[in-house]
Parts: sequence; C-alpha cells; structure tokens
Amino acid sequence: MLAKTPAGAAPATGTSFLDELFDRGLLIETGVDGLYGRSGLFEAIGDGFQALVTRHGGGDNAEIVRFPPAMARDVFEKSGYMKSFPQLAGTVHCFCGSPADHLALMQTIEQKGDWTAGQQASEIVLTPAACYPLYPTAAKRGALPAEGRLFDLMSYCFRHEPSKDPARQQFFRMREYVRMGTPDQVTEFRASWLERGQALIAELGLPFAVDVANDPFFGRTGKMLAVNQRDQRLKFELLISIESEENPTACLSFNYHQDHFGKTFGLTTADGEVAHTACVGFGHERVILALLKHYGTDVARWPASVRSALGL
Amino acid sequence: MLAKTPAGAAPATGTSFLDELFDRGLLIETGVDGLYGRSGLFEAIGDGFQALVTRHGGGDNAEIVRFPPAMARDVFEKSGYMKSFPQLAGTVHCFCGSPADHLALMQTIEQKGDWTAGQQASEIVLTPAACYPLYPTAAKRGALPAEGRLFDLMSYCFRHEPSKDPARQQFFRMREYVRMGTPDQVTEFRASWLERGQALIAELGLPFAVDVANDPFFGRTGKMLAVNQRDQRLKFELLISIESEENPTACLSFNYHQDHFGKTFGLTTADGEVAHTACVGFGHERVILALLKHYGTDVARWPASVRSALGL
Repeated sequence: MLAKTPAGAAPATGTSFLDELFDRGLLIETGVDGLYGRSGLFEAIGDGFQALVTRHGGGDNAEIVRFPPAMARDVFEKSGYMKSFPQLAGTVHCFCGSPADHLALMQTIEQKGDWTAGQQASEIVLTPAACYPLYPTAAKRGALPAEGRLFDLMSYCFRHEPSKDPARQQFFRMREYVRMGTPDQVTEFRASWLERGQALIAELGLPFAVDVANDPFFGRTGKMLAVNQRDQRLKFELLISIESEENPTACLSFNYHQDHFGKTFGLTTADGEVAHTACVGFGHERVILALLKHYGTDVARWPASVRSALGL
Repeated sequence: MLAKTPAGAAPATGTSFLDELFDRGLLIETGVDGLYGRSGLFEAIGDGFQALVTRHGGGDNAEIVRFPPAMARDVFEKSGYMKSFPQLAGTVHCFCGSPADHLALMQTIEQKGDWTAGQQASEIVLTPAACYPLYPTAAKRGALPAEGRLFDLMSYCFRHEPSKDPARQQFFRMREYVRMGTPDQVTEFRASWLERGQALIAELGLPFAVDVANDPFFGRTGKMLAVNQRDQRLKFELLISIESEENPTACLSFNYHQDHFGKTFGLTTADGEVAHTACVGFGHERVILALLKHYGTDVARWPASVRSALGL
C-alpha cells in the first residue's frame, strides 16, 4: 500500500535487504544482530538528512544540546522507563575488583565461563531516547520562561531488541526537537511538526502514511497503557515501508507526553503550573534505510532532486 | 611548562575549569562525574576540529567507517582488553525476565533496593577505543592488498574512570586513522602522523609537548607491560596542559601495536605474514577543552587565526 518499487531499485530476490546492505558495504557486520558499522556513504546520506531537518526546523532557534549515549542511572530510575519498557533498557556494568579478583576473572574468560556475573552496575544507563537526559537538566534551570523552551537534540540510543530487520537496530541515532511549556504551546508545536514532517519526507519523494500509534509497553498492564495512549492520540508516527510493506516502519514520531515528564522531574511553567512537554523524533538510520530501500543502494542513480535535497 | 595563560583567558580563581564550563553552558551536568551534555557551541568547535583533521589526513583516501559506541562481546573478549584494562571496561546488561520478575523488579526500585542484580549480560560491550571493532571486520575481508589498508574512524568510547577533570570523561569521542600492513608500512604511517599531528596542533596555536607514553595497564603485571611499552617506544602522546600544568593531557596518541591485533584477529598481509597495525587517535573533547582552556571560554574573543582554522 505504501512503497512501490521504483525503477532502479533492487529487484526482489532471495537476498534480504540487510544482506544487500552488507554486500554493498553500506552497513558492516559486527556479529551481533542490530549492531552495525556504517560506511562513509551511509553517513553522508545521514548528514544530508540532518541538514534537511535543520532547514525545516532551524528557524525556530532551538537550543542545541548533545548528550553522550548514556545517562545517570538515578534519573533513569525516576523516569519510569523500567516500569514501561524494562525489556529494552541497557545498564552499564563494570569490574571493581582487586588484582586477585582479576586473576579469577581471567581464568573464567580462558575457560569460556561467564565472567560477566562479577560485573557491578555503574551509575550509568544507556540512553533509550534522546530526550531522557534533558528533562532534569531543564528543570534545574528553574521555571520555564513565558514562551516556554525548545531544544534540538541528537544522540545514539540503545534498545535491546536484536533483530535481522536493519530498521530495528540496538544502537541507533535519534534527532529530536523537544518543546516544553503550557499545554497550548506544546500541542501547537506537535501539530506544526505533524505538517512539517510530512513536507520534509515529501521533499525526499518517499511514500508515507501518518497514523496514530503506541509505544511497546511491557506486559499485561502495558497493553492497557498502549490502548490509553492510542485513545488519547498521544503518539503519531510517520510510517515508511522498509523491511515490509504490511508493517511499515515508524521513521518520525510526534509525541505529546502531557505532564508526565513535567511531574516526574519538577518542570514548571512561568505561571507555576506543571509544564507539559512534546517531542518530534527523527529515526536517523531509518530515514537513510528508507531512502536506500526506495531508490536502491546505488546512490549515484538516485533522482537528481533527492540527491540535491541531501547535498549528495 | 606548557601552557601560559594568554590575554583574554579566564583568570585563576577558586572556581574549577569544570565549574566554569558548566557556568558557561559549554558542558551540561548529568549528576555523574565524567558524563556531560555538550552545547551547540562546544559541538561547533568540535566540528571545526574534525574538519581540520580531515584537511591534514584526507589526502590519504582512508576508508571511512563509523561504528556505534558498542561492539560484540566475543570480539571484546578475544581482544585481551579485560586482561589489560578490566577497570575501564563497560558491559551492557539487560532485563530478560517474565512479567512476574518485572513486578519484583519494580518493587525493588520502589524500595530503593538494588534492582540491577537481576540484569543479565547482553552480547554487547561498550567500545573502549574507536579501532577495537575494526580489526575483525578487516580480517574478514581476507589478506590485505599489497599496499595495506587505511581507515578513518570516529566513535563515542567508554572508560569507567569517574573524575572531576573535564578532560577525563567516561563517554568521549575518539577520531582515529588506522593503518594495517607490513611493519614498514605501519611504522612509516606512524612517523608521518607524529609530524602531521604537531603541525595540526601548531595551526591552532596551542603549546604542546610530545613524549613517549604507556597505557594504564591494570595491576602488577600491568606495571611490567607499561615498562615494556615505553622501552619499545610503542606509544607516543601529544600533550597539552588542560587541567594541570604538571600533568598535561594526552590529546593525540600515536600507537604501534606491532602484530598484537594481527595475531589476535588473523589479519594477514598480501605475503601471508601476520599484519602489523598502528593508529593515530585524536581525543575530540580533549582538543576542544585544550582550546577553551588556552583561549578562554568566550569563543568570540579567540584569535581570528584560530577561529578561521576551525571555521568559527
């Protein structure tokens, strides 16, 4: 329904899209599903996409912040992520032992035993979405100004979901604009990005659909949370067919968090109300993969208009 | 001995350099020592530095590869990193339990207990240096061509060494050129970068010294390894004074691994010999911090020649 195979795209064969990406050297195997290196060309497509996002969003003068791919564990605990998505989280563990412990560790490794059991949790957890480290940082500055705040984020994120679908990687990059303010300010922001996001992807000539969506909440309680999220239309996704035509991939998402992060991290508006937040997220690798799927892996043969939009 | 405080730099006060970076918004606290957000200006300085590196090294037509900030655990085990630097490594652990396990986990979090004990090691380990994921990838392609190979890498890396020294971060970026080939090919590469690296830093007007160095090997055996490494002059560092004048910081390093990685990962030359490898590493954050320390945190007042070299 979404993607038609255009002229010049790879013909359907027994080879998977992931295999084709490996064969062309665009992605590089590491031995772990969902953990791949990227070629210079893959990165150049991505740079072009990021510049395109900035052309569409840069006029708003968002404050640029770049976090490393990890965050403080106590902030992560407070965020409620382990309640909703425990299966996706990655905690960072370290060796804190003595030289004698180290000898034992080395013996275990030599004997192919499980040496990781002795690793201890550090203060650090991998970032699950680019905006998670931002909320406590913003709250620390005090009440928001009357016009609220707008941030421009990008970071590598981690989600533990090993898969052969190249659009479902364990380590991937997410660009985000995050709006904080009154309910009116943040819902207006999300509505405007629902339009802009479609214009942006249309500029790349990719067929897409926009639909209401839900996050992959864990367990039985999670099912109810997902239904609520859909009923309240808190999450929309811009979907493009990559690995499957039946199950297109969310490449952009438009999220209204209501007062969840405001309450959790003590973020307040100029009037002293609990702040509302919303974000638009761009799946960096997913958009690159959508382009490679739609126009084929021979980038020199992409339409001139698309190459021009991406500065390629 | 190295850095003189230039006109326009921040005067010495009771405030640490890290505090000054926080106050100016160049780095952003996360609550964990060595884990910081970066401002748009900090990133712009870094972009300028990376372009400068490319101007000095780009003519060699290195193959660009970008890995995410993690690598496969089995490759990591094979690399010998846990033997030499166990204290610095970060393993990634996940929740693999049932809904019942999840209930117990949530109770532990609510009671402020140690919920991380139930986390299980994933197949993923954080990257300790940008080149670690590369060696098995290169070996998989078969014997090197007669001219060897040259790669251009950059990634976030992790080392567990919490510190208040902003030049010693737990998550930091490392740019690397990695050369693989015969002993002659790789030692010539390193010798040429020892010159180029100095020319590059001289272009930024930063006072520096180059010295033989050693890695922070663990334990008593580690002391011997360090002595050997120095005796054989396998590691040189380009040092710039950042946090301390007495102990200047390694901002670039020039490493000759001999056949360590070649042997470990089965990398061979065109003649069927074990390949030798060498790398030059650029501490991305460290060079930015050296600039901010030397010229002050008001970038608009930096010398025009430096701003021009960085495209600022």
